[in-house]
Amino acid sequence: MEEADTLIRGCTILTMSEKGTIEQGLIAIRNGKITHLRKETGAPKIKAEKIIDGRGKVATPGLVNCHTHIAMTVFRGIAEDQKLDEWLSKTIWPLEAKLRPKDVYDGALLGCLEMIKSGTTCLADMYFPEEMVAKAVDKAGLRAMLAHGLMEAGGEKELRKSVEFVRKYPGHASGRINACLGPHAAYTCSPDFLKKIREEASALKVGIHIHLAESKEMMRLVKEKYGFTEVELLERIGFLKSDVLAAHCIYLTQEEMRLMTKHNVKVAYNPVANMKLALGVAKIKDLTDLGVTVGIGTDGPASNNDLDMFGNMKIAALLQKVQYMNPTVLPAQKVLEMATIDGARALRLEKAVGSLEVGKKADIILLDFRKPHLTPLHNIYANIVYSARGSDVDSVIVDGNILMEKREVKTLDEEEVMERAQKTASDLLTRQSG
Amino acid sequence: MEEADTLIRGCTILTMSEKGTIEQGLIAIRNGKITHLRKETGAPKIKAEKIIDGRGKVATPGLVNCHTHIAMTVFRGIAEDQKLDEWLSKTIWPLEAKLRPKDVYDGALLGCLEMIKSGTTCLADMYFPEEMVAKAVDKAGLRAMLAHGLMEAGGEKELRKSVEFVRKYPGHASGRINACLGPHAAYTCSPDFLKKIREEASALKVGIHIHLAESKEMMRLVKEKYGFTEVELLERIGFLKSDVLAAHCIYLTQEEMRLMTKHNVKVAYNPVANMKLALGVAKIKDLTDLGVTVGIGTDGPASNNDLDMFGNMKIAALLQKVQYMNPTVLPAQKVLEMATIDGARALRLEKAVGSLEVGKKADIILLDFRKPHLTPLHNIYANIVYSARGSDVDSVIVDGNILMEKREVKTLDEEEVMERAQKTASDLLTRQSG
Repeated sequence: MEEADTLIRGCTILTMSEKGTIEQGLIAIRNGKITHLRKETGAPKIKAEKIIDGRGKVATPGLVNCHTHIAMTVFRGIAEDQKLDEWLSKTIWPLEAKLRPKDVYDGALLGCLEMIKSGTTCLADMYFPEEMVAKAVDKAGLRAMLAHGLMEAGGEKELRKSVEFVRKYPGHASGRINACLGPHAAYTCSPDFLKKIREEASALKVGIHIHLAESKEMMRLVKEKYGFTEVELLERIGFLKSDVLAAHCIYLTQEEMRLMTKHNVKVAYNPVANMKLALGVAKIKDLTDLGVTVGIGTDGPASNNDLDMFGNMKIAALLQKVQYMNPTVLPAQKVLEMATIDGARALRLEKAVGSLEVGKKADIILLDFRKPHLTPLHNIYANIVYSARGSDVDSVIVDGNILMEKREVKTLDEEEVMERAQKTASDLLTRQSG
Repeated sequence: MEEADTLIRGCTILTMSEKGTIEQGLIAIRNGKITHLRKETGAPKIKAEKIIDGRGKVATPGLVNCHTHIAMTVFRGIAEDQKLDEWLSKTIWPLEAKLRPKDVYDGALLGCLEMIKSGTTCLADMYFPEEMVAKAVDKAGLRAMLAHGLMEAGGEKELRKSVEFVRKYPGHASGRINACLGPHAAYTCSPDFLKKIREEASALKVGIHIHLAESKEMMRLVKEKYGFTEVELLERIGFLKSDVLAAHCIYLTQEEMRLMTKHNVKVAYNPVANMKLALGVAKIKDLTDLGVTVGIGTDGPASNNDLDMFGNMKIAALLQKVQYMNPTVLPAQKVLEMATIDGARALRLEKAVGSLEVGKKADIILLDFRKPHLTPLHNIYANIVYSARGSDVDSVIVDGNILMEKREVKTLDEEEVMERAQKTASDLLTRQSG
């Protein structure tokens, strides 16, 4: 009889692979990987220490949040309904200047907790010092692609820190924590600095995570200063390659989209933050029609204000439908693909995660479908994207480890994490006004 | 010592009245009404059978869903990502033709269950036979403003049914169930029929709930047929008065908005359904700037696909911000007003409900704020509108009766309601294909 560490029995499996949906499915996990995945017919013939009853539940790949700054969870609700420049210059930047590494850790830990409780298993994060985010992600048991945020102002010193960080966590999905370089944007980094970062990334064989075409105002500044749009500028300095993950991409001309496609640049679509800060609406259908890989991000919780990928998936779909005035745009199944396998592709982790397949890492979530708002069950993808919410996630497994079971988080003390974050948030405000 | 039926102690109260927020608040309920509401200083000096520990919780008025068709909950997920005309003609209308009164009841009961579990205490519903919806709402213990849906095709017979229905449940907030007349729209009812309905409503002293300016295509048909826009037509036949609740109002010219303002017509804004069916975006800021009362509706769960007012509040705000490219539009507090007191005004029930005040009916929800995604607490309105979801609702009280406590529904058997609805939904499909 074969052995497994964990066996999930009787669930409906959305593989998000060519295998589609499996009813009454069985998933066996051993040494962090999926070893069996099939329809259960008769006794499973696999011995396992831990057996999870999946009846009434739906298993999907863990969700991938392609763009966030989870340490900013301590800023949730701190500056609301404001314009981007005011929001940044009057509240966020002054507060960030006072952030201590410990505060970043506390915020990141709260963000990780919220992610586990709402079914996100993998995130692309950019902040500073990212070392503290890595520490929180590690403790929580999540998977991540992390970047130490870089601005021109930080100069060589910060770039050296980034490189050290990347050396510590190579960006090859070998472990749960992977790293890449994180230049903030073309309006906060000079072309020379960006070129240097590009060279380092290529030498280190890691990717780059950057904000791109997020705000009309910032794009105007770049155009005025350099005579090129952000995308043109990045293309001219040889920055655009298939290892670049570009967040936002709201304002792209057809020619710029062609450049993105040519270089196979990946896109993180952040519908909620883009709406909340009134920055605009990305043309996601145009991008996917051109073959661009698009994942979904929440952006930081200070401009969202949550990390629940379910609500964000719903809004991702709704916004594109009304943007194109066409309800067939971004159907539910495509949206779930964007939040799983396409998200994994955007982070270049698709060989490890993003779909449920034998040989892949066991990053799995179980949704409890016995809920009034998930009844009746006519269309499983529609129920997940348009009706489910993070609180429907029953269990979360990353790398074969159970991070949450029956909504009880195993890796973090919920009360303690919340208390610490609340205290840190209050202290920050006191220090700021003091 | 004074007596109360129920006493809530130690909660933060968002009164949604001039009294604003009360920390460490006390609410006493007797005979269905709020008898005390204040900061708790020392022992309460009120004796009560039932005491609810409100510590760590936020009390708000129960949420008001201003436009829905809850019986359509059985259609959730049945026809996804389709165009409105196709969605209606190929799926919804053929299914509705096969609906039996029992099916309407089963669907409505599931809708009521979902509403209780997500903090909605009052709804404006329009369907047929609405008698079955009233039966479900009554059993669930919710408050409602119900209308038997009327189309030209149903003629005098259906109008007589509507009038009977209104006589049974007068529209005066005297009881939990209130009624009004419900002509479907100007494109499904002739001007003569609408005039007759208007006369009946005025004679019966009840309001009117109607779909208005929802779809460009339907508006074009009306203009072609009658030579006037929907709003102009309704104004010319004397239909527009302060007792009219108009759902959608996506396409209104400035002149039409002026007419709406002049007659004090109320508006139900349905952001999710309007996005999902790609119908367009209502200009809510223009309407509220003119002084028009606007509430929020989910529309039917077949085009949403949920009845959770929390998610719908968030999208209500986000959509207006990006529509006006201004993040200050519809700040969080205003959105919560729209979902409570403004919603009550839209249903003309504001003397009874919509805010927490002594003398008003006790329609109260308690939100559990000890959640990762509601931490830290910097801005209580922002946390409710941008971060909370229906599953954060701990307890629900309507008319002084506890419908849910610690997430356990008291008035309905959850399992049974879900099972019945699932069976009804499956039977419907079988009958349709048979």
